[in-house]
Amino acid sequence: MKAVKWFAPHDMRLVEVPKPAPKPHEALIRIESTGVCGSDMHYYTDGRIGKTIITEPLILGHEYAGIVESVGADANPALVGKRVAVEPGIPCLKCEHCLRGRYNVCTTLQFPGGPPYDGALAEYSAVHAAFCFPVPDAITAAEAAMIEPLAVALHTIELAHLMPGETVAILGLGPIGLLTAQVARLAGAGRILGTDLLGYRVDVAKRYGVDAAYNAQTIDSVETILRETNGRGVDLAIDCARSTLTPAIACRVARPAGRCILTGISGEEYGQFPVDIARRKELTITWCRRFRFNFQTAIDLVASGRIDVRSLITHSFPLEQSRDAFELVSRAGENVLKTSVDQ
Amino acid sequence: MKAVKWFAPHDMRLVEVPKPAPKPHEALIRIESTGVCGSDMHYYTDGRIGKTIITEPLILGHEYAGIVESVGADANPALVGKRVAVEPGIPCLKCEHCLRGRYNVCTTLQFPGGPPYDGALAEYSAVHAAFCFPVPDAITAAEAAMIEPLAVALHTIELAHLMPGETVAILGLGPIGLLTAQVARLAGAGRILGTDLLGYRVDVAKRYGVDAAYNAQTIDSVETILRETNGRGVDLAIDCARSTLTPAIACRVARPAGRCILTGISGEEYGQFPVDIARRKELTITWCRRFRFNFQTAIDLVASGRIDVRSLITHSFPLEQSRDAFELVSRAGENVLKTSVDQ
Amino acid sequence: MKAVKWFAPHDMRLVEVPKPAPKPHEALIRIESTGVCGSDMHYYTDGRIGKTIITEPLILGHEYAGIVESVGADANPALVGKRVAVEPGIPCLKCEHCLRGRYNVCTTLQFPGGPPYDGALAEYSAVHAAFCFPVPDAITAAEAAMIEPLAVALHTIELAHLMPGETVAILGLGPIGLLTAQVARLAGAGRILGTDLLGYRVDVAKRYGVDAAYNAQTIDSVETILRETNGRGVDLAIDCARSTLTPAIACRVARPAGRCILTGISGEEYGQFPVDIARRKELTITWCRRFRFNFQTAIDLVASGRIDVRSLITHSFPLEQSRDAFELVSRAGENVLKTSVDQ
Amino acid sequence: MKAVKWFAPHDMRLVEVPKPAPKPHEALIRIESTGVCGSDMHYYTDGRIGKTIITEPLILGHEYAGIVESVGADANPALVGKRVAVEPGIPCLKCEHCLRGRYNVCTTLQFPGGPPYDGALAEYSAVHAAFCFPVPDAITAAEAAMIEPLAVALHTIELAHLMPGETVAILGLGPIGLLTAQVARLAGAGRILGTDLLGYRVDVAKRYGVDAAYNAQTIDSVETILRETNGRGVDLAIDCARSTLTPAIACRVARPAGRCILTGISGEEYGQFPVDIARRKELTITWCRRFRFNFQTAIDLVASGRIDVRSLITHSFPLEQSRDAFELVSRAGENVLKTSVDQ
Repeated sequence: MKAVKWFAPHDMRLVEVPKPAPKPHEALIRIESTGVCGSDMHYYTDGRIGKTIITEPLILGHEYAGIVESVGADANPALVGKRVAVEPGIPCLKCEHCLRGRYNVCTTLQFPGGPPYDGALAEYSAVHAAFCFPVPDAITAAEAAMIEPLAVALHTIELAHLMPGETVAILGLGPIGLLTAQVARLAGAGRILGTDLLGYRVDVAKRYGVDAAYNAQTIDSVETILRETNGRGVDLAIDCARSTLTPAIACRVARPAGRCILTGISGEEYGQFPVDIARRKELTITWCRRFRFNFQTAIDLVASGRIDVRSLITHSFPLEQSRDAFELVSRAGENVLKTSVDQ
Repeated sequence: MKAVKWFAPHDMRLVEVPKPAPKPHEALIRIESTGVCGSDMHYYTDGRIGKTIITEPLILGHEYAGIVESVGADANPALVGKRVAVEPGIPCLKCEHCLRGRYNVCTTLQFPGGPPYDGALAEYSAVHAAFCFPVPDAITAAEAAMIEPLAVALHTIELAHLMPGETVAILGLGPIGLLTAQVARLAGAGRILGTDLLGYRVDVAKRYGVDAAYNAQTIDSVETILRETNGRGVDLAIDCARSTLTPAIACRVARPAGRCILTGISGEEYGQFPVDIARRKELTITWCRRFRFNFQTAIDLVASGRIDVRSLITHSFPLEQSRDAFELVSRAGENVLKTSVDQ
Repeated sequence: MKAVKWFAPHDMRLVEVPKPAPKPHEALIRIESTGVCGSDMHYYTDGRIGKTIITEPLILGHEYAGIVESVGADANPALVGKRVAVEPGIPCLKCEHCLRGRYNVCTTLQFPGGPPYDGALAEYSAVHAAFCFPVPDAITAAEAAMIEPLAVALHTIELAHLMPGETVAILGLGPIGLLTAQVARLAGAGRILGTDLLGYRVDVAKRYGVDAAYNAQTIDSVETILRETNGRGVDLAIDCARSTLTPAIACRVARPAGRCILTGISGEEYGQFPVDIARRKELTITWCRRFRFNFQTAIDLVASGRIDVRSLITHSFPLEQSRDAFELVSRAGENVLKTSVDQ
Repeated sequence: MKAVKWFAPHDMRLVEVPKPAPKPHEALIRIESTGVCGSDMHYYTDGRIGKTIITEPLILGHEYAGIVESVGADANPALVGKRVAVEPGIPCLKCEHCLRGRYNVCTTLQFPGGPPYDGALAEYSAVHAAFCFPVPDAITAAEAAMIEPLAVALHTIELAHLMPGETVAILGLGPIGLLTAQVARLAGAGRILGTDLLGYRVDVAKRYGVDAAYNAQTIDSVETILRETNGRGVDLAIDCARSTLTPAIACRVARPAGRCILTGISGEEYGQFPVDIARRKELTITWCRRFRFNFQTAIDLVASGRIDVRSLITHSFPLEQSRDAFELVSRAGENVLKTSVDQ
């Protein structure tokens, strides 16, 4: 089958690879759509995220959907012919973390598109059938591929234990930030403030539930958010950026006894935190690692029209032009929100 | 009355100040004992903790106990004549944080011994009577002054939601670390590992519940703790040090989905955190800010002999020699655990 | 001043009583509106709620709002002239429950309209100024009196830790049930199912966020809710009724590992629970006791138009006709949702 | 192989049944010891627990340990020859409850010794290898069989979120109650009060961490526990009895904002709860359903000598005399704590 492999920073090429055969518990997916994620960008441009480094040519891509072509002997045959959103990352389901419901940190989890596991910029993928979630007919393939980032946003808000009326700051208004804003709005957030470095993102943010969005190139995020909250700070500060600076901003804009959720991926090994202020406020910081059983809820919310993923998909490329898709995203401009590779 | 004022780094002198008069809801305490705390050291040597800076001469000291000499008209007269441990830090009891039970982060809390509120290196103190906790006769004044750091240790473990059998790493084995070890042991911790830079602290740690203590001058803390936990890491990593390095170590030695409690005070504004590894493990970090209604429990545990504070008190000085006490602690050696100023 | 006193079941009369004088920390409220609550009904018709019994003639009423006429010496003078929603129930702010943020269970809390504390069916009330919450001008007095039941609904959902997309059953669609439905909808609930014994309530429920409402006179609640959830049950079952049967229904319709919040007040001392099924599902049941610092959020939600309290107010009576108001509510029909006594 | 089948109340006989063959992921256990549990008693004497009814002759027994004789192709061969404690109850590991870490309420969980799944009063058992936990050599077979009830006690305290110093009431001092007392003591409980109807259990309770034990035949449990806590009630009330009365007692003796954990199994479908008092105190009740990944911790605590299971085993019978073992336990006297069937 055809696939697109990453060989080196900015070097990604169409290749032929063997078509996978599903194991007994697996489904074989004919991939229709694969989203380009901010985390993919780290691999694309640097070949690494922190200490996780690509050492062999790798097929990237983990936000994907497709049609189940066949299933193994032990998998549910009713899946065949269905369009499914695929939850990427197959845990062992035996270790302490899995059995405690924290399967997203299973240490032997196999995540497609992260070394050494090939991902979804390909014609086919074989995956554990229990991690294939059928979507209603009204959901397109590109929308179904968006279930993955929406699951991240849902997990973010789940970790936050957001109470109705609580104020929220969202640092970074890319696809994850805008989905998180929608979920926070859905979850009854009070005022939602947002910041981003790109003007066009700031401009569209209100459509996704952000009450006031600011361009962090021209204003001071901390000062602005504190002023807008009368000096109190927000109940919940969420980092959805790809920055080394935003975690510290989150700490600064959270109220005393507030919570920070760090979902963004700077790509660096280390970040600077304002420990003095964090201690005085007795903050809690929780890092968000992907998702934990959030796909079905994500599908329901898209199906019922309560969350809009469609308008976030701004660009589409065929598989053969995957590199163009990645280059577009890496330039971080041109009104790009979500770019997908569609077959 | 006599008091000891800080004028500049390492400059602390005996002075005469007016004896306070209790307001209607207050008790007047004749102070018997005041402990020297690691946080006092930051003020003593640097005149600041992070951005909190002493700008006027200040009476330091916040770990204290004494005899109630009199009470105001609205306070409980039964307190008179009793030895009490004083919970320092009087919250407003009206704001959202107070009403939600997070009074330790009340933004108008008045904390003695932190600028601009005078502390307990003095003959008397007037304090809200509800924050004076009588101790049984068997508890000495110096032990009663230890209720404050024990309350910090209790709050640390309370924030940790420690489950029986969970493994714990304690970074920093000073008085707070050794009290936290005792509380963790009391709370049913499984294996407790500890590290410190001072050999004599490492040597005594086993007496306080640490199963294995290591000198971080000679071993690599991260490597050692991971090796001792077969690579898994500990359920709970607690920073009780005065270091800029230990928070990052805590993140590194916590297991996937583990928790870090940061109780130590580096004195700096910023600290470096390993965000890549923290995100992959979906860690939760909680800073510990003093205590929240932990004094009564602390007293009960000392009274029943389940926590040993007595043997931690290694040195005692009269009020007039407070500066010697602070100098001793600032040298961080000579087998000092807790030093108290006794009258 | 004029007030309305309860003397015996169904016997409530206009009387003259002394006008209260505010203490230093209190505000004197000229009462404009007092809502009639289901809990008032227990006192009105039975003279008791469980073991709490009226032994002396009592002024009922605890959902109220009015204009601050004056304040005591220690209270904020900026309150004077403002319309405020009054949080009823003044806690001691000194006991362990208060200091832990659970002031709603303070054992010395003084609750107006519950024996022996007179309530708000009167011209004036003196109350702790910190429990008077100014409302914006656009909020009418009758709406401001609805902040109290809305605070109950907010506390209900707060106790439930509702996650976006979770399904909810609400048993009882009176004012509390319909407010809870609105808050659950606001908080991102998935499907909300409701039941009530009164047809007109079932009919209006959709307007308040209930997706499907059923008349429990004609259908079997358990069977219906289980069928509508494909046998799984709901994530969250909330009892908002005045029934001895609904707590057991809540247990039956909750999913495995589900949560039940019991906000309704049957008025009886005992209730029957299906312990076998509750144990097999490892349910958690939490009783809701009024509210905990929910007034400001309630006001914000009404002010921003996100919660509709206005259309729930179906009937209004002058103070002199308070008995008619209570009789109307006690008959539980005639399309009554919320009845208020307005001055 | 030989097995003991239940045919009717008090009718249990030795029979020959086919020896099980392990599936690829299973281990074949040669059973050495099976404990007799209170829940077994309901089946033995009534043929049911609530609505779960034995309709075909059934092999009872679910607390068991033995030697791994062989393993299937996909199971860890290192298990062969090891003594293992078996976690009974094999969940599907695919459903929402399993993936959320609540596998103990998996609706397709197969629990041995509960209809229709045969249990451990037999020579062999084939079980999912991931649910076989090797024990150190120092742990005997009968002790290893006690890991199961200890896991229940650990899960009970885990659900309770016990904080150091909190007071505890334990209603019912059979094996589960005495193990729970030990775990509560281990977890740093303050005062532990206990009640039971059998004098010999009351007499031994102190050995297991209960500070004061009372015979509920001669004292009033509610009155006694409230008096012993100066009217405040306990932080945590745990029902470990087989009674319809103890859940209500738990509600009555819990403090305001207290928690009740209901681990006992009355065997009835319904129980009476004091809803008036539970609501006023805003109690939380959580039913305990077996355990969730508590076996390894249980083994560690027994291996390290921190929990004593050995002295709880008071009687032993050979497999052929299983009926005698059950008759003994059903008589609830003769100083029986735990009875085991040993091969």
